[in-house]
Amino acid sequence: MQRGKFITFEGGEGAGKTTQARLLVEHLRSLGIDVIQTREPGGSPGAEVIRNIVVAGDAERWSPRTETLLMYAARSDHLERTIRPALDAGKWVVCDRFADSSRVYQGAGGGASETLIEALDAAIVAEDQPDLTLVFDLPVEVGLERAFGRGLFETRFESKGLAFHQKLREGFLGVARRHPERCVVIDATGELEAVSERLRSAVAERLL
Amino acid sequence: MQRGKFITFEGGEGAGKTTQARLLVEHLRSLGIDVIQTREPGGSPGAEVIRNIVVAGDAERWSPRTETLLMYAARSDHLERTIRPALDAGKWVVCDRFADSSRVYQGAGGGASETLIEALDAAIVAEDQPDLTLVFDLPVEVGLERAFGRGLFETRFESKGLAFHQKLREGFLGVARRHPERCVVIDATGELEAVSERLRSAVAERLL
Repeated sequence: MQRGKFITFEGGEGAGKTTQARLLVEHLRSLGIDVIQTREPGGSPGAEVIRNIVVAGDAERWSPRTETLLMYAARSDHLERTIRPALDAGKWVVCDRFADSSRVYQGAGGGASETLIEALDAAIVAEDQPDLTLVFDLPVEVGLERAFGRGLFETRFESKGLAFHQKLREGFLGVARRHPERCVVIDATGELEAVSERLRSAVAERLL
Repeated sequence: MQRGKFITFEGGEGAGKTTQARLLVEHLRSLGIDVIQTREPGGSPGAEVIRNIVVAGDAERWSPRTETLLMYAARSDHLERTIRPALDAGKWVVCDRFADSSRVYQGAGGGASETLIEALDAAIVAEDQPDLTLVFDLPVEVGLERAFGRGLFETRFESKGLAFHQKLREGFLGVARRHPERCVVIDATGELEAVSERLRSAVAERLL
């Protein structure tokens, strides 16, 4: 059996990742591909428990270093219990946020050690790097306005201020430059359908 | 100001660590030493939240790898918010379980990668290795009988069977052999007062 493909969605707040992930899953299914949709932090029962303690509480509840360890603990469970079993069964996996969010939120944005993050990534994600990472890019002001507009000011991360979110945007673009073999930057401005079309093109070009 | 001394208590179940930690703290205070008592997993508000999700649930709830990451997440918070501030203020710290319990419970006992554990330890504990580690040693059957006797079959770890606990004992003795500069093996059989006296001797010889 051929191993499935692993697609991750990355980017800042309000970029439309969650909606677009759902639309891409529908599109892939219409092509006859068996696909599961998941998300981070979370995506398995244990990882969802960890998610609850990471996203709740004050902005300074956890240091960036502790937060990195919690995120990789959740990722370890998610990989073992959801992602790897699906890929091994030939299913495609579409995941809303993955390891690049640790690189950017805890690393570039939060100041956690890049050495620590890369050591964790080598140990935990190891051979299961995404086949394709779609990096949603849009001006920070537009993203935050969308996030606030939909009343989703739910996480500690959305409350950290404009300079932090600017660092995130630059961080994600930096990841895309360092990993061109798997990353495609998607212009997330404009209408839903236009963005969807950009995604489908990237998937077709890289994976189909 | 002189930095305080950091003493950790390690060993399997039913060795009397918690009681002996309390008695040692009282002894140190009687010598005029300013000392705090803490424990792992836990020891700071965030780490106690992580403790609750690690020690509860089925024995197989977390893989040894995920468990290692959760333990170091808790340890990171505990170090940042409890242990380092106390040591920096000149206080001594007596901690019931610390990093050697990860080496032994998740590593030697659980099969988590030693490479991962040592990489985490170098990144998270770093320069804050204990000045003295008291390794409580006693036959597994005696320890488990004591643990059951006091009705403390409370954690996932006490329910994992005799062979697992035998691996733990050998694991702790292995740590003591690898780190003679900080470890003293304490014979934990016999009466409470006799064990206390062995502890006080080790502390006096190594730290006073």
